[in-house]
Amino acid sequence: MQLRIPGPTPLPPQVIEAMNRQMINHRGKEFGEIIRQITGRLQTLFQTRNDIFLLTASGTGGMEAAVVNTLSPGDPVLAISCGFFGDRFSDIARAYGAEVTMLNFEWGKPADPDTLRQALKQNSRYKAVMVVHNETSTGVANNLAAIAPVVREFDKLLLVDAVSSMGAVDLPVDKLGLDVVASASQKAWMSPPGLAMVSLSPRAWKAQSQAKMPRCYLDLAEARKFYEKNQTPWTPAVGTAYGLAAALELMIAEGLPGIAARHEKIAKKARDGVKALGLSLFPDEKCASVTVTAVKAPDGVDVKKLLQTMLTEYGIELAGGQQKLEGKIFRIGHLGWVSEKEMDDVIQALAKCLPKVGYTKQNPVSK
Amino acid sequence: MQLRIPGPTPLPPQVIEAMNRQMINHRGKEFGEIIRQITGRLQTLFQTRNDIFLLTASGTGGMEAAVVNTLSPGDPVLAISCGFFGDRFSDIARAYGAEVTMLNFEWGKPADPDTLRQALKQNSRYKAVMVVHNETSTGVANNLAAIAPVVREFDKLLLVDAVSSMGAVDLPVDKLGLDVVASASQKAWMSPPGLAMVSLSPRAWKAQSQAKMPRCYLDLAEARKFYEKNQTPWTPAVGTAYGLAAALELMIAEGLPGIAARHEKIAKKARDGVKALGLSLFPDEKCASVTVTAVKAPDGVDVKKLLQTMLTEYGIELAGGQQKLEGKIFRIGHLGWVSEKEMDDVIQALAKCLPKVGYTKQNPVSK
Repeated sequence: MQLRIPGPTPLPPQVIEAMNRQMINHRGKEFGEIIRQITGRLQTLFQTRNDIFLLTASGTGGMEAAVVNTLSPGDPVLAISCGFFGDRFSDIARAYGAEVTMLNFEWGKPADPDTLRQALKQNSRYKAVMVVHNETSTGVANNLAAIAPVVREFDKLLLVDAVSSMGAVDLPVDKLGLDVVASASQKAWMSPPGLAMVSLSPRAWKAQSQAKMPRCYLDLAEARKFYEKNQTPWTPAVGTAYGLAAALELMIAEGLPGIAARHEKIAKKARDGVKALGLSLFPDEKCASVTVTAVKAPDGVDVKKLLQTMLTEYGIELAGGQQKLEGKIFRIGHLGWVSEKEMDDVIQALAKCLPKVGYTKQNPVSK
Repeated sequence: MQLRIPGPTPLPPQVIEAMNRQMINHRGKEFGEIIRQITGRLQTLFQTRNDIFLLTASGTGGMEAAVVNTLSPGDPVLAISCGFFGDRFSDIARAYGAEVTMLNFEWGKPADPDTLRQALKQNSRYKAVMVVHNETSTGVANNLAAIAPVVREFDKLLLVDAVSSMGAVDLPVDKLGLDVVASASQKAWMSPPGLAMVSLSPRAWKAQSQAKMPRCYLDLAEARKFYEKNQTPWTPAVGTAYGLAAALELMIAEGLPGIAARHEKIAKKARDGVKALGLSLFPDEKCASVTVTAVKAPDGVDVKKLLQTMLTEYGIELAGGQQKLEGKIFRIGHLGWVSEKEMDDVIQALAKCLPKVGYTKQNPVSK
């Protein structure tokens, strides 16, 4: 059985083993040491000296923390979106009363830094720019190395959803000046869902002290008070933290360059593999994500049937498309605990499975 | 090693074993079946036909969901408080702009239903009444069987923090007409922290549709849409759900009357035990909680030293007092997976430990 959706991702045996233990006092010394160690290792992999907090929440909770801790109702913000998660990020800001201007790009295309520069030139009122680094819904990786300097040029806050990228790629938070960055345990972090991690720059802290959006559970000023004693304000997901601590040990041992190279190799294998089967990638290859590969559904192939057959006959679980991409693409998740051998298995299974669900290589993809 | 704090609570071996497994697709059939089963069993133990949702959050997240889903900024609410968690509940409402009137009772005393009736008579504007059922900080159980009818009499919404009581006691949600009730996995539910459960009555749903407090991650209307297909809107704490499912199987097998009787017996053993040692309970015995026993620190005994010695020499972890009770009380948690034998062990250890930290029975408790 291979779980090849873009999260939750498979757990290494060391992570499962680490969670095979009793609860402890979340305000005791032992758990404090776990929090301290997790935080330091997250800082290494986020490449930052910024504060990082664990929230007992999914990635969406982390995105919401990014918004409500930096903005006030009525604040004008520019929300970049090229997919489902970009839209979600903007929905959160809207729900809390931000005045959201969308900067939309076609699904499957990345955000264009020059268009962003134009938008920021035309309107200097924006308080913040929101962007999804890795758009899981379309398999597009936005080029933060080009986007971040534009945002810095105009001195805006930069809120980043790195839920499905951080920990798998080289995304240097301090070097790029990313103000708030959210990720989540069930993605590259090889742990169960339940913990979001959020980093805040000194600029973000300044915004935090003035931000008037209501918050309590996700209030990071409250979190900061407790982090001084290696605690969280509310009872944290202790069991998930056991797992995350073990996963981070593996990640630090492999090292970020090794992790990033592995993800790049496997992603290339995924792209080359599906292309060799005659299929087409959904996004332009040059902006393709290294953690999830989105593939156009071939003409005449029912995506549901393909996913079902892959699961029942080959023991491999892939993901379909979300929202307007439902039925139009399928997605292969390859982040966290994944090897080249496993990607070979996926491609081989697809080669056997596709003809069973009506695909012939002679049947060119027209979409 | 015995963890005898009022949460996280120890995990039965069946719960640890259930979590010893791989991740699965949180939108697949298998996990859908887990969600469906958990929800049905929670309804049995909440004694309700109301909708119940799992939120990936701690108890405080559940309390926040209760507030933001039923109220609008400016709504007048009456917040009953007799301790730290009553105050926290009111803080959440205040953070989101409710106009909070406190109905305070002395820490260690329960909320008085007649005083509540007077308050509701004097001011008919209140939209809702907020109350903590089991005040973990003081070891007081509020008498909801008397409080709820008063709130019903005045036709107000009743928001209940049952974080540390539900699942351990007979708290019939439908019979009492409790509109929103929040609990959390790491308490009586014998599971790791990470999942809050929140029930909503039809009256609460009506309020939900008009409530204007901003919400996204904790939006229960969004949760309801996904629950129709046994899913959650955001990726849930899959591993914790494995544990909770196993714990609920044990709880259903024991049955609520059995669970409640066991908790009552053990709580009585705790109270009788500490009294036999010459100690005094912090609350009046007639309102003492069945899930946590709060004990006055004897004169001349340093609570920190007592807890430390209990932990290092007897392997039993107790809790201290919170906020203004720090150093003045200690607390024995006895909820979830706990037996009479274990409470005997706690009392015997206290009997040996107390003299080592300066206590003599001849030294009467003056506090």
